[in-house]
Amino acid sequence: METQSRIPENLKLAVLERIKPSQAERERLLIAQDELVAKVKEAAEQLDVPDVFAKVVGSAARGTWLSGTHDIDIFISFPEETAREDLETQGMAIARDIAKGAEHAEDRHAEHPYLNIRFKGFDVDLVPCFRVASACRIKSAVDRTPFHNEFVKTRIEGLEDDVLLMKQFMRGAGVYGSELRTQGFSGYLTELLVIHYGSFESAVQAARSWKPGKKIDLMKHAEIEHEEPLVMVDPTDPKRNVAAALSLDKFCMFIDHCREFLKNPDLKSFFPEPPSPVGDAEILEKMEMRGSGQLAVVFKTPDVVEDVLYPQLYKTEQAAASLLEGHGFSVIKTGVWAGRQETVIMLELISNTLPNVKKHIGPPVWVPGHAEQFKAKYENTEDVFAGYIEDGKYVFEILRKYPLAAELLKEQLSSHSLGKHIQKSINRGVEVLENAEVRSLKDPGFRVFLRNWL
Amino acid sequence: METQSRIPENLKLAVLERIKPSQAERERLLIAQDELVAKVKEAAEQLDVPDVFAKVVGSAARGTWLSGTHDIDIFISFPEETAREDLETQGMAIARDIAKGAEHAEDRHAEHPYLNIRFKGFDVDLVPCFRVASACRIKSAVDRTPFHNEFVKTRIEGLEDDVLLMKQFMRGAGVYGSELRTQGFSGYLTELLVIHYGSFESAVQAARSWKPGKKIDLMKHAEIEHEEPLVMVDPTDPKRNVAAALSLDKFCMFIDHCREFLKNPDLKSFFPEPPSPVGDAEILEKMEMRGSGQLAVVFKTPDVVEDVLYPQLYKTEQAAASLLEGHGFSVIKTGVWAGRQETVIMLELISNTLPNVKKHIGPPVWVPGHAEQFKAKYENTEDVFAGYIEDGKYVFEILRKYPLAAELLKEQLSSHSLGKHIQKSINRGVEVLENAEVRSLKDPGFRVFLRNWL
Repeated sequence: METQSRIPENLKLAVLERIKPSQAERERLLIAQDELVAKVKEAAEQLDVPDVFAKVVGSAARGTWLSGTHDIDIFISFPEETAREDLETQGMAIARDIAKGAEHAEDRHAEHPYLNIRFKGFDVDLVPCFRVASACRIKSAVDRTPFHNEFVKTRIEGLEDDVLLMKQFMRGAGVYGSELRTQGFSGYLTELLVIHYGSFESAVQAARSWKPGKKIDLMKHAEIEHEEPLVMVDPTDPKRNVAAALSLDKFCMFIDHCREFLKNPDLKSFFPEPPSPVGDAEILEKMEMRGSGQLAVVFKTPDVVEDVLYPQLYKTEQAAASLLEGHGFSVIKTGVWAGRQETVIMLELISNTLPNVKKHIGPPVWVPGHAEQFKAKYENTEDVFAGYIEDGKYVFEILRKYPLAAELLKEQLSSHSLGKHIQKSINRGVEVLENAEVRSLKDPGFRVFLRNWL
Repeated sequence: METQSRIPENLKLAVLERIKPSQAERERLLIAQDELVAKVKEAAEQLDVPDVFAKVVGSAARGTWLSGTHDIDIFISFPEETAREDLETQGMAIARDIAKGAEHAEDRHAEHPYLNIRFKGFDVDLVPCFRVASACRIKSAVDRTPFHNEFVKTRIEGLEDDVLLMKQFMRGAGVYGSELRTQGFSGYLTELLVIHYGSFESAVQAARSWKPGKKIDLMKHAEIEHEEPLVMVDPTDPKRNVAAALSLDKFCMFIDHCREFLKNPDLKSFFPEPPSPVGDAEILEKMEMRGSGQLAVVFKTPDVVEDVLYPQLYKTEQAAASLLEGHGFSVIKTGVWAGRQETVIMLELISNTLPNVKKHIGPPVWVPGHAEQFKAKYENTEDVFAGYIEDGKYVFEILRKYPLAAELLKEQLSSHSLGKHIQKSINRGVEVLENAEVRSLKDPGFRVFLRNWL
């Protein structure tokens, strides 16, 4: 019998005022889009590549982009029967031709190469793709996008503002973006949620009582089971989960954000106060209050895109925590921060030090061979404090090899599986800062991270 | 195909020379025994208690006592049909009559009252008992002893030296004595082992490959299953396990002692170097080397017999360890020492301190009601550092109530179940010493304990 608390209209309007592109912004975008489409056609003709045209996809094409994001996705569509190699060389040749008039251009690589350019103030991706007959027959992951575009475009009319509100709301929760760094909600997923629930408000109301395993199947055509916390069956491909990249924690953070917002609908849920960088004095004060051990593993940020970097960072974060736990340290929490220059794996421990003495528990006394070998190994070692029997097992109090967590990380971390690029960077040099020493890291981005951490 | 290493005869002789009572000692014992038996008869007649006589039982009666132990057990045997009350009043009246000529007398209490006296240099127990027809029909636990005495006496001839060797060998291992403090091998159990295996050496050879669940049933008449590590079915009572008091660790220590001894048979296995009290400087040095946290919970030793005291001590030791572990501390080991004046529960920890910050993990975000209540409870509390979602659960970093182990023990230990007498003593006053502070405890007995501890 819960009363459905309505979201005040003027709150929505206040949000939209800040995020909805102005008429002028729209016009600039349309002009740029049209120009790019024409340029693709021109370039294809000039390079003598037949039957190729441009498709504008993404939020810009669907009227669901947030003011100021300035992303344009231009897909260079090749006939389905084009050879993979031709698509790549000819597609990139067309893209490069367009790039001549751009302020900046950069080769990028997903499943295929594509070109990212800066054009009249917009961030443009020029992506070669196959023009397949259905999303189930795609030859490359990007071939799906035009189908998504079609599906949304025909259903989103009148719901554009709700999508904008939802995107900004998710930004406020820190769950917007399906890239590997964020593991949150993609733009397409957000649009599907609004289409499914009919409005921003209904979606937020519903999400309050989501549970892992929540499944939405707009076309009622699901073909396989998925394990992810949220399953949004792709309306254009019955085998695919649109929410596959969404992590459990981002799923839960969204639920939590919906609950808090409905209890108290305010602008802050959309535009949270940006945290300020924490100063030296405050770092000291907060660390003293916590009384725990703080470790910062610092190395040069590898020069790779975020979708390559972050999975390796998370792997390194896990490896560092396992290494410490495996040597008897107690990890309270871990985190990663990557700036342009430096990357930091932060670890908070119960303590950065452990006693020299380590209790080493062996096999039960009555296990033939094994027990006697264990005893023989330790009883005459120099670095043994004592040996005795406890709970039927031989126990030796031995000298701990790594009583200092920082030493352990410095000496052992690089021999663990961390991902290629981080491995390389760490092999070139790694520093482990302890407690107040992290004050030597001055990057304001890190200091913002540290404010949330402490 | 292991070669049976024989124990050198001259080693056995060297041990026996130190532990076998001399002719003079034997004669003194026999004279004292006879005198005590006569005194019981006399006293019974004088007090007009008919059909009562004395039985000499225990190792003194069986010729298996270690030189210098000087224990005599005199059982005052009443007819089976005697009323329980009469046995107690008349038995104690007889005992007190004998005590008139003793150097010292003290009332003691097991299942029934008995009298302990000092008589001509011997430590004598005068124990009233029922003269039952069989050990299965006993009316009091002590009634069994005369049956044990009979069983051993008729089988031990020629094996007395082996029993002496085994008893001393067990002393060397620290496993001799079935009282609740030691939880080791009783004299009767030792005798049965020698009878079963035929000699000291065969018993030691066999024990090397004992495993928990080892069962010996001399009379092949076991009637029930037992759970203890060693089961020696009482030859006089098919339901009873003579080794019921033997702990797993003492069982294992014996196995280990047998193995070590057979690898290298020497006098030290019978007569280990007694450890010397550790001095102040050495305490400091060793504690520094270990680098751990040391805690000594000190209180007045309750004025009760060891069989009452030690179970409560072990209970307190466990309670202290659980209390600490329950509050996040890591216990390396625990120990107890009780002197005449003071009792000490020793605890070694990874550290005596924990950080102020404590990670408090709540329910999964999607659990209705429960999750929101948890969050509501903590999010606006003053003593909260931060709250976030981890692995789908609400997590709050809260202020730890007890960052100091010593404070925790001082404030909380007495509210745990410790046993009546220790509870009382701790309520009257308890001190918790940390690390080098234990140097204030000067009792040489404690300093010997501390040498083994550090």
